Amino acid sequence: MSIVRILSAVALLIFVASKVSAQTPPGESTWASEWGADDERGAANRITPRKVLEATRLIKEGRIYELGRDYEAGMPLFPGRHYSLTIPGSPTGGPIGSNDVVWHDEMVSGQIGQVGTQFDGLGHVGTRVDGEDVFYNGFKRSEFGTSGGLNKLGVEKAGVFVTRGVLIDVAGYKGVERLPVGTVITTADLQDALRQQSVELSEGDVVLIHTGHGALWMVDNEEYNRGAPGIGMEAALWLAEQKVAMTGADTWPLEVIPSEDAEVAFPVHQELIARRGIYNLENLDLSEVAADKVYEFAFMFAPVKFKGATGSPGNPIAIK
Amino acid sequence: MSIVRILSAVALLIFVASKVSAQTPPGESTWASEWGADDERGAANRITPRKVLEATRLIKEGRIYELGRDYEAGMPLFPGRHYSLTIPGSPTGGPIGSNDVVWHDEMVSGQIGQVGTQFDGLGHVGTRVDGEDVFYNGFKRSEFGTSGGLNKLGVEKAGVFVTRGVLIDVAGYKGVERLPVGTVITTADLQDALRQQSVELSEGDVVLIHTGHGALWMVDNEEYNRGAPGIGMEAALWLAEQKVAMTGADTWPLEVIPSEDAEVAFPVHQELIARRGIYNLENLDLSEVAADKVYEFAFMFAPVKFKGATGSPGNPIAIK
Amino acid sequence: MSIVRILSAVALLIFVASKVSAQTPPGESTWASEWGADDERGAANRITPRKVLEATRLIKEGRIYELGRDYEAGMPLFPGRHYSLTIPGSPTGGPIGSNDVVWHDEMVSGQIGQVGTQFDGLGHVGTRVDGEDVFYNGFKRSEFGTSGGLNKLGVEKAGVFVTRGVLIDVAGYKGVERLPVGTVITTADLQDALRQQSVELSEGDVVLIHTGHGALWMVDNEEYNRGAPGIGMEAALWLAEQKVAMTGADTWPLEVIPSEDAEVAFPVHQELIARRGIYNLENLDLSEVAADKVYEFAFMFAPVKFKGATGSPGNPIAIK
Amino acid sequence: MSIVRILSAVALLIFVASKVSAQTPPGESTWASEWGADDERGAANRITPRKVLEATRLIKEGRIYELGRDYEAGMPLFPGRHYSLTIPGSPTGGPIGSNDVVWHDEMVSGQIGQVGTQFDGLGHVGTRVDGEDVFYNGFKRSEFGTSGGLNKLGVEKAGVFVTRGVLIDVAGYKGVERLPVGTVITTADLQDALRQQSVELSEGDVVLIHTGHGALWMVDNEEYNRGAPGIGMEAALWLAEQKVAMTGADTWPLEVIPSEDAEVAFPVHQELIARRGIYNLENLDLSEVAADKVYEFAFMFAPVKFKGATGSPGNPIAIK
Repeated sequence: MSIVRILSAVALLIFVASKVSAQTPPGESTWASEWGADDERGAANRITPRKVLEATRLIKEGRIYELGRDYEAGMPLFPGRHYSLTIPGSPTGGPIGSNDVVWHDEMVSGQIGQVGTQFDGLGHVGTRVDGEDVFYNGFKRSEFGTSGGLNKLGVEKAGVFVTRGVLIDVAGYKGVERLPVGTVITTADLQDALRQQSVELSEGDVVLIHTGHGALWMVDNEEYNRGAPGIGMEAALWLAEQKVAMTGADTWPLEVIPSEDAEVAFPVHQELIARRGIYNLENLDLSEVAADKVYEFAFMFAPVKFKGATGSPGNPIAIK
Repeated sequence: MSIVRILSAVALLIFVASKVSAQTPPGESTWASEWGADDERGAANRITPRKVLEATRLIKEGRIYELGRDYEAGMPLFPGRHYSLTIPGSPTGGPIGSNDVVWHDEMVSGQIGQVGTQFDGLGHVGTRVDGEDVFYNGFKRSEFGTSGGLNKLGVEKAGVFVTRGVLIDVAGYKGVERLPVGTVITTADLQDALRQQSVELSEGDVVLIHTGHGALWMVDNEEYNRGAPGIGMEAALWLAEQKVAMTGADTWPLEVIPSEDAEVAFPVHQELIARRGIYNLENLDLSEVAADKVYEFAFMFAPVKFKGATGSPGNPIAIK
Repeated sequence: MSIVRILSAVALLIFVASKVSAQTPPGESTWASEWGADDERGAANRITPRKVLEATRLIKEGRIYELGRDYEAGMPLFPGRHYSLTIPGSPTGGPIGSNDVVWHDEMVSGQIGQVGTQFDGLGHVGTRVDGEDVFYNGFKRSEFGTSGGLNKLGVEKAGVFVTRGVLIDVAGYKGVERLPVGTVITTADLQDALRQQSVELSEGDVVLIHTGHGALWMVDNEEYNRGAPGIGMEAALWLAEQKVAMTGADTWPLEVIPSEDAEVAFPVHQELIARRGIYNLENLDLSEVAADKVYEFAFMFAPVKFKGATGSPGNPIAIK
Repeated sequence: MSIVRILSAVALLIFVASKVSAQTPPGESTWASEWGADDERGAANRITPRKVLEATRLIKEGRIYELGRDYEAGMPLFPGRHYSLTIPGSPTGGPIGSNDVVWHDEMVSGQIGQVGTQFDGLGHVGTRVDGEDVFYNGFKRSEFGTSGGLNKLGVEKAGVFVTRGVLIDVAGYKGVERLPVGTVITTADLQDALRQQSVELSEGDVVLIHTGHGALWMVDNEEYNRGAPGIGMEAALWLAEQKVAMTGADTWPLEVIPSEDAEVAFPVHQELIARRGIYNLENLDLSEVAADKVYEFAFMFAPVKFKGATGSPGNPIAIK
């Protein structure tokens, strides 16, 4: 992977993007949450006990699929982030006691909630409006952001996702191994693939999109990071209308990169997370569920409760 | 919390312990795993699809209990470890694009797998034998330990724990809010409490022990860290005989501290993890499940796949 | 040291302070630098080649005094900061080659420029004025602050301090081992001590103040951190008039804590660093130079060029 | 820079090297230090007050040359190491007080003593002999290495280097801008260049070698990291005989890479640091002193006293 090339590409993107004056009006969607002015959980409110039971009923065989990737040196990273794990010492501690016990621990540093398989919480993305950074439910960064963590929208507020999961295998539907970087996934693509899979969405689902892009992970990191196939704004809005709780994909940004409109940066993140309170999972490994045509399953993910964090690492699972 | 006092206490413990020459013979339990010479998963092998289905059938209401604690500055830590989370920048990135998107991430450092609610993997604890550090299944540190992670027994090998969970409320059984530091929990205590709860253990269960010690968390960190009530070696061996997959408690060490034999350091860790391949969860919040008398439940925990790590943070859950 | 108590004290201070509305007008001192509108070096401009030669001429014996402290676990820290050093591995690398070379490195994390013996650069302290954070020479945080480092006033711009150093032994002058926490050091104190020492200040000097407070370091960290003796605003302004390049002390804040006016937080930092461009060194060990009555010396300190950092660790030296 | 390519190259080197059985006998040089069995300072003992005065007398103009580089994202790194600096918050702290003070600090992580401009202390490099890692003066890792720092040979023991510095401009002598990667610098090269410069070495000097390789820094990191011109073992031994205190270069390894003998890894490090106690500085910027033909100067470097560390960052200086 050439970090330099990626950095150049991103720098260019940022440069181009930043030269464009803000033209997109916030639109008619307001910042107010449908769950009330104090709500910090967004679409996680859709995970009701009834939804948990609906998910549970999908478990027929007891087979678990791990959708999370290993966190390791050399994995693709967003420019500027790092991940480091070392084992201190030889061993870390001991031997002590007449039983000569020894132990290891690990020293980890990095943007832990935003590297590798990552969960985007509601404090991750916002919009600058009139000099103020506005996040989900209208919360203002100047009022909740601190150097030691977010006082609102921290990932510890999100709770746990035990819900129905749906895989939409767009690559499979289109009959390709991998959608090329930049492929825009449309509402029609999602609907047609769902129809072929004989699956319908329902409120509170987690929707995971298989693009095949994940096959590049640790194989061709440069191509992996160069961009991604993904949903455009139309499909994002349709998913929001279906009242999903979370989206996810086997790519780093979920949404298509480069963006449909080169002057707009990460619009789907902004729409789904900041306005709709819909969470997002990135850098998933969906190869096994796609190969086994597991389109509907019990989905489980419990974000690590790093207080005030914007995201979380983890190993989301599908159970059939 | 006086870190200095804790450090002093631990230093004293270490000093005393290290002065004792190794007297405890490894005993009759061998280092060989019952799952074969190559096995790196230990008691996680007991989580079969059938066990997953057994757990699933316990979900009747769809109610989720979060057993994990927030990770935050000021939480109790084992001496020498740290946890730091900061949010870089103002905000971390942006605004970019005509849509003026902004974003945050978080910089985290620390012994992430071994702070706060923590999962002890099989690379965490071993025993020095004839100058070599021996871990689960006889794997030798000199052959799998590297500065960048463990080549054997890394937490990414453990897989996912979806299984039957059993709470043993020893504090409740004894009619106290909190068992004092140093209280040895015996096999009889566990059996009597289980009988009162009308619950029996079965192979592959996760067994969580409520001592009430967790009420000290962030309230009296000094007392929390000074020691703990917990199982002694007798109870540990009994749990191992029940073929549990994992133990856990609302304390930092699971086992009783100070140890029953002052010359022996963390013998239960050594027995359960290193010899039996049984995993362990520490610093759980069991107050709600105990209050609601949720003694049997579907348990779920998916360790973060930090490659080569000894443990994992996370938010284990109980569903009833 | 009780971190909790310190945190409480600081929290209280912050609470009290933040309740007070901003009453102090910026005063007549403007934000403009005497070294021009683009200047990012402040009083480091006073270290001219002529000043280097003046310092050099003070070296008569070739004896070096180290004024920096060891960075180590357990040292006093400002609330919220940490310092961690671990040695990865066993060893970190090797053996490789037919020569079986092995090596160690170290993993360090923390607020490295602002822990232990620390150098305050010009990006460290500023003032909020009409919603904008204004730093030395009027530079605005909104224009130079980024999550990855400061684009203005980074410590790498400061250059190197080879200059005349002057020790003012206020504790010695007052005939005490240690000035109590909260002792305000006045202009008269500085002038009288200098007169007793038969030393005068000149432009570009580094002035180090011995209070004896440093004797508490790693001995009574709680008292060390509780506050400090130090200069008040009057003495700070007098030092600024002497056109010194840098101040320093054997305390963590240089200035007196609690402040003379309880409603004003770190006013001396604000005045000297943000308005005057005068650097500052904290947590020095001045015991040896004071004991040996080394009042005038060649002073040398080269900040580590962490690009965009606010400060630097290091080991400043005095040579006589 | 392609990290992957570098990692591959290093992996290959390690693979090749590790396949070769240890053939090189430790030779006749013993492990014992000439400064006594307890010595932990090595050639720093050569920096006497007399030597400080000798250095001081070389200061004629008071002009300072900074030989240290900026530490920044994207700088060349040894495989497996990282450097990260972020500024927490917006700002990090404040405003507090009626004076509305605000402040920044920085969060740094990385192998701080062994990234960027770096100083190799005596705990950095050793040799495995009969299963034991032996360092300077025969100190054994098993006796001084701990997970939290080295109990012997820590960089805080090295003291301060104020001494005569000599630049040997080998690139200049050979009439080239830059010696190609892999160029072996011989004793004759050093002697001839010194003769041309009309400079002789003396005991306790710091000897810095200009190869021109430093021009690749942040310009062509891949080529910079691929290898380096540098001294071979013959020149290393000659420098050791001259009783220098420290070596240094504008390359990452000082010594020639690939090594003269492909089966031997970093033999010069092993010889100079581990056997001779001679320190080393890497990744220097020697372009200015070379351009100005500053061959003899007062050299100053005070390692940061990270207790138990193997090295130090810093900004070494030359003064003429």
